[in-house]
Amino acid sequence: MNRIRQVWAEGRSAVVGWLHIPSAFSAEIMARAGYDGLVIDIQHGAASFHEAHEMFRAIELGGAEPLARVSANDPGEIMKLLDYGCYGVICPMIETGEEAAAFAASLHYPPQGRRSYGPRRPAQRYGAAYVEMASQSIVSFAMIETQLGLVNLDQILAVEGYDGVFIGPADLALALGHPPKPDPDAPVVVEAIRHIRERAHAMGKKVGLFCADGAYARARIAEGFDLVSIAPDSALLAAGAQASLAAARG
Amino acid sequence: MNRIRQVWAEGRSAVVGWLHIPSAFSAEIMARAGYDGLVIDIQHGAASFHEAHEMFRAIELGGAEPLARVSANDPGEIMKLLDYGCYGVICPMIETGEEAAAFAASLHYPPQGRRSYGPRRPAQRYGAAYVEMASQSIVSFAMIETQLGLVNLDQILAVEGYDGVFIGPADLALALGHPPKPDPDAPVVVEAIRHIRERAHAMGKKVGLFCADGAYARARIAEGFDLVSIAPDSALLAAGAQASLAAARG
Amino acid sequence: MNRIRQVWAEGRSAVVGWLHIPSAFSAEIMARAGYDGLVIDIQHGAASFHEAHEMFRAIELGGAEPLARVSANDPGEIMKLLDYGCYGVICPMIETGEEAAAFAASLHYPPQGRRSYGPRRPAQRYGAAYVEMASQSIVSFAMIETQLGLVNLDQILAVEGYDGVFIGPADLALALGHPPKPDPDAPVVVEAIRHIRERAHAMGKKVGLFCADGAYARARIAEGFDLVSIAPDSALLAAGAQASLAAARG
Amino acid sequence: MNRIRQVWAEGRSAVVGWLHIPSAFSAEIMARAGYDGLVIDIQHGAASFHEAHEMFRAIELGGAEPLARVSANDPGEIMKLLDYGCYGVICPMIETGEEAAAFAASLHYPPQGRRSYGPRRPAQRYGAAYVEMASQSIVSFAMIETQLGLVNLDQILAVEGYDGVFIGPADLALALGHPPKPDPDAPVVVEAIRHIRERAHAMGKKVGLFCADGAYARARIAEGFDLVSIAPDSALLAAGAQASLAAARG
Amino acid sequence: MNRIRQVWAEGRSAVVGWLHIPSAFSAEIMARAGYDGLVIDIQHGAASFHEAHEMFRAIELGGAEPLARVSANDPGEIMKLLDYGCYGVICPMIETGEEAAAFAASLHYPPQGRRSYGPRRPAQRYGAAYVEMASQSIVSFAMIETQLGLVNLDQILAVEGYDGVFIGPADLALALGHPPKPDPDAPVVVEAIRHIRERAHAMGKKVGLFCADGAYARARIAEGFDLVSIAPDSALLAAGAQASLAAARG
Amino acid sequence: MNRIRQVWAEGRSAVVGWLHIPSAFSAEIMARAGYDGLVIDIQHGAASFHEAHEMFRAIELGGAEPLARVSANDPGEIMKLLDYGCYGVICPMIETGEEAAAFAASLHYPPQGRRSYGPRRPAQRYGAAYVEMASQSIVSFAMIETQLGLVNLDQILAVEGYDGVFIGPADLALALGHPPKPDPDAPVVVEAIRHIRERAHAMGKKVGLFCADGAYARARIAEGFDLVSIAPDSALLAAGAQASLAAARG
Repeated sequence: MNRIRQVWAEGRSAVVGWLHIPSAFSAEIMARAGYDGLVIDIQHGAASFHEAHEMFRAIELGGAEPLARVSANDPGEIMKLLDYGCYGVICPMIETGEEAAAFAASLHYPPQGRRSYGPRRPAQRYGAAYVEMASQSIVSFAMIETQLGLVNLDQILAVEGYDGVFIGPADLALALGHPPKPDPDAPVVVEAIRHIRERAHAMGKKVGLFCADGAYARARIAEGFDLVSIAPDSALLAAGAQASLAAARG
Repeated sequence: MNRIRQVWAEGRSAVVGWLHIPSAFSAEIMARAGYDGLVIDIQHGAASFHEAHEMFRAIELGGAEPLARVSANDPGEIMKLLDYGCYGVICPMIETGEEAAAFAASLHYPPQGRRSYGPRRPAQRYGAAYVEMASQSIVSFAMIETQLGLVNLDQILAVEGYDGVFIGPADLALALGHPPKPDPDAPVVVEAIRHIRERAHAMGKKVGLFCADGAYARARIAEGFDLVSIAPDSALLAAGAQASLAAARG
Repeated sequence: MNRIRQVWAEGRSAVVGWLHIPSAFSAEIMARAGYDGLVIDIQHGAASFHEAHEMFRAIELGGAEPLARVSANDPGEIMKLLDYGCYGVICPMIETGEEAAAFAASLHYPPQGRRSYGPRRPAQRYGAAYVEMASQSIVSFAMIETQLGLVNLDQILAVEGYDGVFIGPADLALALGHPPKPDPDAPVVVEAIRHIRERAHAMGKKVGLFCADGAYARARIAEGFDLVSIAPDSALLAAGAQASLAAARG
Repeated sequence: MNRIRQVWAEGRSAVVGWLHIPSAFSAEIMARAGYDGLVIDIQHGAASFHEAHEMFRAIELGGAEPLARVSANDPGEIMKLLDYGCYGVICPMIETGEEAAAFAASLHYPPQGRRSYGPRRPAQRYGAAYVEMASQSIVSFAMIETQLGLVNLDQILAVEGYDGVFIGPADLALALGHPPKPDPDAPVVVEAIRHIRERAHAMGKKVGLFCADGAYARARIAEGFDLVSIAPDSALLAAGAQASLAAARG
Repeated sequence: MNRIRQVWAEGRSAVVGWLHIPSAFSAEIMARAGYDGLVIDIQHGAASFHEAHEMFRAIELGGAEPLARVSANDPGEIMKLLDYGCYGVICPMIETGEEAAAFAASLHYPPQGRRSYGPRRPAQRYGAAYVEMASQSIVSFAMIETQLGLVNLDQILAVEGYDGVFIGPADLALALGHPPKPDPDAPVVVEAIRHIRERAHAMGKKVGLFCADGAYARARIAEGFDLVSIAPDSALLAAGAQASLAAARG
Repeated sequence: MNRIRQVWAEGRSAVVGWLHIPSAFSAEIMARAGYDGLVIDIQHGAASFHEAHEMFRAIELGGAEPLARVSANDPGEIMKLLDYGCYGVICPMIETGEEAAAFAASLHYPPQGRRSYGPRRPAQRYGAAYVEMASQSIVSFAMIETQLGLVNLDQILAVEGYDGVFIGPADLALALGHPPKPDPDAPVVVEAIRHIRERAHAMGKKVGLFCADGAYARARIAEGFDLVSIAPDSALLAAGAQASLAAARG
């Protein structure tokens, strides 16, 4: 069973890492750190399908659930990632109920959706059982990060076939006239985040948030977020290098 | 001029980073953190020539000096890395004066050495001037990390044509009957490190040390080490991930 | 001349292989086995453009015609594969005449279509003659694999500028409420396949079918299918390994 | 500041190279030759994102401005290239003002456009300043190369948020019923090129042209083209090899 | 515990597959077929370190033990493979006791051997325990495939620190004046194989054999071979393709 | 039959190109220019085995003979290149008859040499016939480029099992106290080249020379050189780019 769903079944919030570095070696290091899942960022990270395919193995071997943030609401891209061992999808820039429905359709085989059959790696492992299992296992989030997405929020949340909404605070801040600050504190952004969380929960959907700082993420978990992502690998590396250099140079 | 030599010319010790992750993207992040140089570890890191070639550009662009720890005292490997933009070589497991001389020969064009001509990337930039410049620019270290290397230390240090010795404390500890602990505290290992440093300086050679912890490295700089490497990228990433997760989960 | 057209000109049906493994080395092995053509599966196989580009050379060198099943009806993807030596395209999920026309347009230069000029590898070989030759050489199939595709079948078949329709039985089965079984025997699926074949031939189009088993494919050739694909490389490998292990272990 | 804008600020026309070979090594050779910028051709060249990402570093290190011709008017592709160090975008097949507006939107952050935030490599270098800087630095061209594009030229030119139009003479020639000759001399094509140049300048936009021959490009600069691309790397290599062989064989 | 040692502990012979195709995707297919281990052939297969590193993960994930046949008795190559998750080494062309001792030394940390410390992937998983564990886990075979190797067989077998000898029948046949036939039947070759097996067992070493055919391998298991390799992936693919084509064409 | 041997059989000298760019795409462009063979430079070029493997296909497809200059007299490297479709080897830095004999041994199967059996790509094509054919087809050159090589020239030339010697004028010039100028004119270097040519021919060996300029190469052919290499791809590209830019800028 999907580790993210297991965490939810235990009444906890999932904590996931975020991968910009296009390397299975570093992905396995991240996976062994104990995240519930790891999101390969195809949209803004350096990996394309080739690297993601290798990274899915490293993440699975390291004990975390392999997820991806895709580059667009593109069924071809989403389906191919699922065919090679992705068990969760975060889709950027959903702005209408129609877009949310198209996203949901790409995740499920007919009759529920329009996913095309060819689950290369999952079928190696689960055989014919995968068809049934796929819909129950894969987790899925539509990103709310634009003004139009906010306006159409209830319409988007009313769509069936995906798990929840995920908030990208940097893009949301830009959309609301603020700089793309991680872990935002501008009242209008904070308020929008609160609004999305409450509407999602009211309509029976999960809600996730991209966070930079661990302590900030913890506070959001306390507020009820079902999934938080924390500092990407590139940020961990940059911060670690700076701290290590400062210690060495005094 | 080589950034490592500049640091030495200013009377300081060089602080270098260490790269296990085979990615130009993460190498550039490391380079922008401010290290004097970055060592691509071909021996125990995941990069081979192909990735090292791309990483040299990222390191140079990020403002650090590109170095490599080679997999063995192999002239073909050393020369090809130099041809593609490596400006410093750390060679493992030097145990005799003869091996040190072979290492030195691979770094210099005739008549001083036996390097074969074909400096693909440096010649793009420096043209014919590179032949002269190469010997003056490239920095080079022979690793002392075995009992035989310790026994033959003075013989090794007497060889001309390379800059200094570099200590691998994990292998040295194993060679002296101790576990391969980073930043070692076993008296016999500490004593061997002190001995190598003093003999190197007495014989006019530089001395470098692989360190894990920044504060430990700083103490070694105070003792007079001319170059210290600090926590590899893989260790920074693992430590950062664990700390970030702990903060998020409380 | 395209090997697939040669086979048709001789009154035979083409037998093509299917490639999931993203390797030019294995593609060349497949090509030397004697297939008329080999289809690199970009939609559900592991190759992306980079690997397909290398595999086209291996297929050509091994004596088979290089084809691709693309990930979607995406002109950019189709055109770039053609620019690098693909001589046949199978396009998934065609559901309307409009989609079929857009597919056909991406295969031909103006005035017939909308293909953009830049045939990198073919122009190395055929020079200016390629512009004329391309339309006559490249073979093309629109996949019928959904209920909507069945409904609009005649409309799709009426479109000019592509060779025929290709049936994906797994997706077709799912669309008709059956499990995605290869070489299907559910009457409704068998009937739909027969219907597509007859309508295609009635309207002057070729018809192809994805088969798993060689004997099943042979029976379909006898029924008049113009092109059959047989067991993908990944299936051949898995079956061969299991049989070899069984023989060794007894 | 973008080297292309610097050239324009000095009242000169920019001369850019064109890259089909998917290699950072050859890209760096090209960059050191002295072009103002180098265009990685994603549409018809062999590079995909992975290679482009490495090539951007090589171009920057060699002193030219890194640009890309994208495969389509696809926001996901455009944004990811910008996130990894592309500072100029040439978009093929723009045919309406709406398409031009969508192209422009993908280049700018809100409120001006719809670019999603995640500038991985630029942020390493410029930090928070990049958000402001991006719109002012990145150069952008919409390609006019179809009949519809010609018909809607003024509508396209009236759109704000991008710098100019770029003419692909091979596709334009095909669209006008002529063979895809580089450096065209068919009067109708020559006239169309003149028309585009004049309308662009009349409406305050820059205009660029793909040229094959250096002398032809020089004549176009004299006519007022703001940017010319000259012989692609693949053409330079083929011509050089043939001349070298002819000299050797006599 | 190493799966190969588990098989031996249960009194059985290990059956391993052989990988020429440089792909983690095909390696995982092979691993899921149920082999005890899979040997990545660095000597005559298409993989180098980069691909082997990815393939080790796929093999481990698929449930087989990852092994490698190295290109030569080269400590640098052997150690780096072990650092990235190889748990068994087959070394070609061992001809003297000295060479066998050098091979053995590259497999063990001091004081037993000369392996340099840096177990990147194993240490992620097993931490400090790996140093102890490595010598007990890794399996190792010296290949006997030349006349000199036959002459010095007892000397080679007398060396400690590796598990057994592995017979390459194609090279052995060539060395004995016969064509490089798989599963050889020339009496002198058959006799040499018997001799090696008996001497190995007499001196307390394991003995392995490269076989092509499953039934042939089974007969060798019955004779007492401790490990047999069966048909390589490339041979399985070629044979499967030919059989599939024959069935389709009739 | 090897194209180089065909040229020799026709009484002509072979003209080969030289590849530094690690790309099958550019290698195919070079091959279609009409060289008799193309040498992938593993020693000073950017390709390693992985790229060479892909490039061999491109060269073969383009109609030239695929050769390699290896990084060292390393049997493992030489044999693996031969296994993947290399039909000619140039080995650097041969200095003694013993080294020449070791080089020759790596090219031939027993009993003539010590090549290990596993010709992956040639066996796909030629089957069992390759064993016989290999020795007759593959061309081979030992490089003379050091003082010791000059001293031992006759001893080296007396060794059987390889075709001839190849002169690296840059390294030879350095060895003789001159700058590494291509197409050298220093009398002592010119005299050494003449001496090597005459001794080679006197002892029944072929002789080859690395040339930069086509006209210079032609003069050497007139002197009797059996094989000349002309300007590497990297040099052709740099020169072409500079000329093209000069023409564009005036």
